[in-house]
Amino acid sequence: MVGHSGLQQRSAQQRLLDLGIHLPAAPTPLGTYVEALQTGNLLFLSGMLPVVDHKAKYVGRLGKELDAEAGRDAVYTAALGALAVAQEFLGSLDRITRVVRLGVFLATVGDFFDQPRVADGASDLFRDVFGIEKASVRTVLGVASLPLGMPVALEIIFEVKAAESL
Amino acid sequence: MVGHSGLQQRSAQQRLLDLGIHLPAAPTPLGTYVEALQTGNLLFLSGMLPVVDHKAKYVGRLGKELDAEAGRDAVYTAALGALAVAQEFLGSLDRITRVVRLGVFLATVGDFFDQPRVADGASDLFRDVFGIEKASVRTVLGVASLPLGMPVALEIIFEVKAAESL
Amino acid sequence: MVGHSGLQQRSAQQRLLDLGIHLPAAPTPLGTYVEALQTGNLLFLSGMLPVVDHKAKYVGRLGKELDAEAGRDAVYTAALGALAVAQEFLGSLDRITRVVRLGVFLATVGDFFDQPRVADGASDLFRDVFGIEKASVRTVLGVASLPLGMPVALEIIFEVKAAESL
Repeated sequence: MVGHSGLQQRSAQQRLLDLGIHLPAAPTPLGTYVEALQTGNLLFLSGMLPVVDHKAKYVGRLGKELDAEAGRDAVYTAALGALAVAQEFLGSLDRITRVVRLGVFLATVGDFFDQPRVADGASDLFRDVFGIEKASVRTVLGVASLPLGMPVALEIIFEVKAAESL
Repeated sequence: MVGHSGLQQRSAQQRLLDLGIHLPAAPTPLGTYVEALQTGNLLFLSGMLPVVDHKAKYVGRLGKELDAEAGRDAVYTAALGALAVAQEFLGSLDRITRVVRLGVFLATVGDFFDQPRVADGASDLFRDVFGIEKASVRTVLGVASLPLGMPVALEIIFEVKAAESL
Repeated sequence: MVGHSGLQQRSAQQRLLDLGIHLPAAPTPLGTYVEALQTGNLLFLSGMLPVVDHKAKYVGRLGKELDAEAGRDAVYTAALGALAVAQEFLGSLDRITRVVRLGVFLATVGDFFDQPRVADGASDLFRDVFGIEKASVRTVLGVASLPLGMPVALEIIFEVKAAESL
């Protein structure tokens, strides 16, 4: 590695290896929809839940059954699922030119105000994998409930380049 | 069934006829916004509510005043409204090349976990009209309330082709 | 004022002046994300909160600690922040060719049904600044909670033209 070997130059796939992250199996749809879809240069993903091996890793709401640490890990888990879906769809995460939009939806009760730190469970992972210069816009909402009683869901749009231009 | 007459080849407008579906009048805005808008190849729709003849077909929340069956029909009703808006905007549903993103928002109280089946009220309709190969990504959220106390809202992005390329 | 000096022809920047609106400082991120990002002709903004000088102007929920008038002003305040972010990112609001999508998220408790009027706090401002012919699609949701206990958040996509084509 001569010259251009700094943090910014390593590929997303290389960074995953460096971080020791093994992506889980991509989640499968719970209904009549697909997990990912490309239109133009945008890759839209379905709502990603904290699922491991097709089972909920967490059930419950933040501020009641679960605390902020569990919420942060649930968000991180859902973000890993998003990377798995993108890798399966694109063949390689290196086709992702940036994370465009991250929606973070947290099932909350009462006065749960620690939303930004919980949401960073996904944003920090994406920073580590894609680099800070590809950071997304983000919206965080506390919602009443999520599918199957899970505490978090993520909605993500990636910008991708055409396979031939790699 | 000769040649190209299979399920995949029938147009969306033809399928609507075959299914005996008559689209309702397109809903009208409740404020300073429009019901549909095209940018590039994407057609964005406003939040679609379960409205028939400009009146709420359902009022209440899932898990309290309404059960999952009512929720599923409310979602179906809102999806019909979306098709009506798209048809009015585009002239023909055959200009839709696929459903990109379906957001399903359900006003819920307590432990209402049957969200995927309720959301399929829209996804199944779109499958029947556009074909399974045009299935969207989907995000489902349980929310605290929706405009005018209605139980469901849908937010949809369609991919469309230019009128001249039909 | 000769010829094309009617309402439709004034620029967004000129209208801001005419309306006597001084944009606040653009908000800064609460976590690992950016406030705005352009992909193709679309400018995505992060969730905009009712923040003035980096402090929450309102805390509480609609239908409980805050009424519809406060909600409408909170929405207006968040929309001003969105204009500040867009102006900082683009250099000039005149690069905005239309408002594409406006998501309005209101922290609500109980039976708060006055959502469309509250949401018009943003839509009416955008109409005054960009003109009614650039009105967006809109989705309004009542949610359980928002970051730092604030009552409203806006999620906005603008359509923009390239800087060189001004």
